[in-house]
Amino acid sequence: MRFLLGPILAGLALLMLAPCAVALYYGSPDLEAFLLSEAATAGAALLLVITGRRRILHLRLRDMFLLTSTSWLMICVFGALPFILSHTVESFTDAVFESVSAVTTTGATVLTGLDSMPRDMLLWRSMMQWLGGLGIIALGTAVLPFLRIGGMRLFNTESSDFSEKALPRARRILNQLLLIYAFITVLCAIAYNLAGMSVFDAINHAMTTVSTGGFSTHDSSIAYFDSGSIELVAIVFMLLAAVPFMLYLPLILGRRSGLFSDSQVQSMFAIYLVVATVLAIWVILTDQVDMFAAFRDSTFNVVSIGTTTGFVSTDYAGWGSFAAMTFFFLTFVGGCSGSTSGGIKIFRFKIAAVMFHETLQRLLHPNAVFARSMQGRPLTDEIVASVMAFSLAFASIVGIAAMLLAAAGNDVVTSFSAAATTMANVGPGIGDVIGPTGTFASLTDQSKWVLCGTMLLGRLEIFTMLLLLTPDFWRA
Amino acid sequence: MRFLLGPILAGLALLMLAPCAVALYYGSPDLEAFLLSEAATAGAALLLVITGRRRILHLRLRDMFLLTSTSWLMICVFGALPFILSHTVESFTDAVFESVSAVTTTGATVLTGLDSMPRDMLLWRSMMQWLGGLGIIALGTAVLPFLRIGGMRLFNTESSDFSEKALPRARRILNQLLLIYAFITVLCAIAYNLAGMSVFDAINHAMTTVSTGGFSTHDSSIAYFDSGSIELVAIVFMLLAAVPFMLYLPLILGRRSGLFSDSQVQSMFAIYLVVATVLAIWVILTDQVDMFAAFRDSTFNVVSIGTTTGFVSTDYAGWGSFAAMTFFFLTFVGGCSGSTSGGIKIFRFKIAAVMFHETLQRLLHPNAVFARSMQGRPLTDEIVASVMAFSLAFASIVGIAAMLLAAAGNDVVTSFSAAATTMANVGPGIGDVIGPTGTFASLTDQSKWVLCGTMLLGRLEIFTMLLLLTPDFWRA
Repeated sequence: MRFLLGPILAGLALLMLAPCAVALYYGSPDLEAFLLSEAATAGAALLLVITGRRRILHLRLRDMFLLTSTSWLMICVFGALPFILSHTVESFTDAVFESVSAVTTTGATVLTGLDSMPRDMLLWRSMMQWLGGLGIIALGTAVLPFLRIGGMRLFNTESSDFSEKALPRARRILNQLLLIYAFITVLCAIAYNLAGMSVFDAINHAMTTVSTGGFSTHDSSIAYFDSGSIELVAIVFMLLAAVPFMLYLPLILGRRSGLFSDSQVQSMFAIYLVVATVLAIWVILTDQVDMFAAFRDSTFNVVSIGTTTGFVSTDYAGWGSFAAMTFFFLTFVGGCSGSTSGGIKIFRFKIAAVMFHETLQRLLHPNAVFARSMQGRPLTDEIVASVMAFSLAFASIVGIAAMLLAAAGNDVVTSFSAAATTMANVGPGIGDVIGPTGTFASLTDQSKWVLCGTMLLGRLEIFTMLLLLTPDFWRA
Repeated sequence: MRFLLGPILAGLALLMLAPCAVALYYGSPDLEAFLLSEAATAGAALLLVITGRRRILHLRLRDMFLLTSTSWLMICVFGALPFILSHTVESFTDAVFESVSAVTTTGATVLTGLDSMPRDMLLWRSMMQWLGGLGIIALGTAVLPFLRIGGMRLFNTESSDFSEKALPRARRILNQLLLIYAFITVLCAIAYNLAGMSVFDAINHAMTTVSTGGFSTHDSSIAYFDSGSIELVAIVFMLLAAVPFMLYLPLILGRRSGLFSDSQVQSMFAIYLVVATVLAIWVILTDQVDMFAAFRDSTFNVVSIGTTTGFVSTDYAGWGSFAAMTFFFLTFVGGCSGSTSGGIKIFRFKIAAVMFHETLQRLLHPNAVFARSMQGRPLTDEIVASVMAFSLAFASIVGIAAMLLAAAGNDVVTSFSAAATTMANVGPGIGDVIGPTGTFASLTDQSKWVLCGTMLLGRLEIFTMLLLLTPDFWRA
């Protein structure tokens, strides 16, 4: 597998040149740290490329599971180097936490004082999120449907055909996706800049918006700018990042995209719209702000949490327990499959809704025969079972993580919310500690390691990593 | 349907004679209230019997759904009469809440000052729980599997054959179940009495133990007695009440019961044992009490919450957030199907575990064929879908109820915990308000009505009532 890990790490080394250059340009104190990290990453990449076999082997199923988890872990480790070497964080744990949070596009942070932090370090955080977003698009479009993870076989198209013959085609699609991802990022940066952000802020926020990561260059996140037009840009691009990127492919070829006729996309918009409206009405009824501000704040933060980005435009912790509960449940929802967003994802709720409707119908018509389908494709028994297993695993891991966090001394709300927000790769939670204006800095080391686990499990759709823990995987 | 509702209400009127007699004997101030309630209930029953058609009609599927929900609601309403008429509670809402909590065997209460309350009223609360327990055994054994509710078709045996020919047999089984239920209650009362309870306390606690209801005659619940032997009796009978009562049938006929070889029962014991042990170790490690007390308190309260009884032997709110979280998750587990306990129930977790295992295996062996079975019966696609729909509905309703409770002004922990503990028919929750030593008295009226809804939905396995809310049900 080293022949594939090598180029991936080389890609990271290539990206790391950017903060090196920025550090050099500004004479940053982090320059040495970045050069050392660059040397270590490039060296390791070279070693992997040299020792790896050259010829393309036929990848077995098992290899793909292992490759996926290993490459993610590898990037988290090497990506953490600048944090440790520059003493930006106080401990090894914090460095890994920040790195995992970035690469999984979670956006939970242990850092404060972002506003006065060297630009190279801010850029590195944003770039890691951008890279993580790219990785998850590739994974969700090509690899996971092929591996049949969590019901994603529903989206098993030509893009995930790994037969010798179809490989060039899969590669072409992945290249096109990279192009689209980069193009949307550039568009987003331009839009942010036009809306009033500095060039540096625009580039950083574009990368963390399109990856639905949610890191910011300011401690107070998007609230720092206090600008309706910037929030509008963010809303549009968070939504664009939460739809299946495959739906953009026809646009490249000058064909009409099925973007707005896609039922998963439609449901996503509907859910966010309903939640944002209910929340806005709640905020208005409890007399907290005027109507325009209520809709603006509600829409921004609902889209931000829903798409699992995690930007914060206002301290909604002051909206009371109904709002807190809403944001807590919204954490689980997530965006569409094949996008950069996390969570349980819309299509799984849609499948569950199909089963729910069928169950009600079956009670009334016990002898009827039901044909299940979604988006014009049959919902096989296998897909339904996978979705059920995924949901069970998601809930169980959130539960287990919450108990471990409680055992580590966190209060009930923080434990539950931290487990959920990291598992869904959202970022901010609810409660006094990790709420919209808080950070994860004060948690104990044990807590942070638990959360590194949930972030990675959540990002890799659980089973990719879980399978590695079964004896069966290593046996055959 | 009135020809069936009549006898059910007549049964309630018959039971109500007991508190009437007790009130008469002690010259209780509640005598008038009970006599009035008795008159109203008996009168209504008579009216239903007279106006109802005599001959036994063939019950359609729809009628059985309607009959189930209607009879439960009817008993809740008439059972609430003594509370209102005697001014034991302050409002109509409180009376209905207490009554619903009793009949659904939840055991959440709005009452304090139980220790000085007239005996007739205490007896009535206990008797309603006992009746509710009997009702749920009949429903869970005979009706719900026939109606295919929430995957319970898995337990569709001869007992739920409602064809003309099989009806006498079904009736005989139901009579045998009543006998067993009564027998276990008597045994439990004797055991409590031998362990040190007064005759009155023993009778009351026997009725609320065997129904896994959890009402007590003392504000401090079982902790009042501070007796290891009483707690031991409670543990044994709570467990006996949480196994499928059908498994006791062979004992009547002098045959060996498959009680301990039943995989659902085994899993239940295993789950409680693991949770109680982990919790005891936690309590010991955090140096809160000595080893013996830790295991005693942990075992009692885990069995009490696990079986959805809700007795409290110690204020475990002081054990910290890890314990709180443990009890919160345990709330959802519940006992076995066909018992008096509530919750999601063990067999559904077992089915989910089967699906989980299958999904992991399928990832490694994509072309293998999997045959699902449980307890020697095939797990059909329909059962799996039902369980999935049930779990989704359970989680959704807990979520919606929690949001309504939060909107009514409750804090996050209370809202979430109240929704869960009522939906699972447990009783006590976590947090400062409804924790082990608290009551539901201080909640707003809106909150209490929401909780009446969750108690009934939870007790009737959701779909029985949910179906009545669909237009389709009334159309055909």
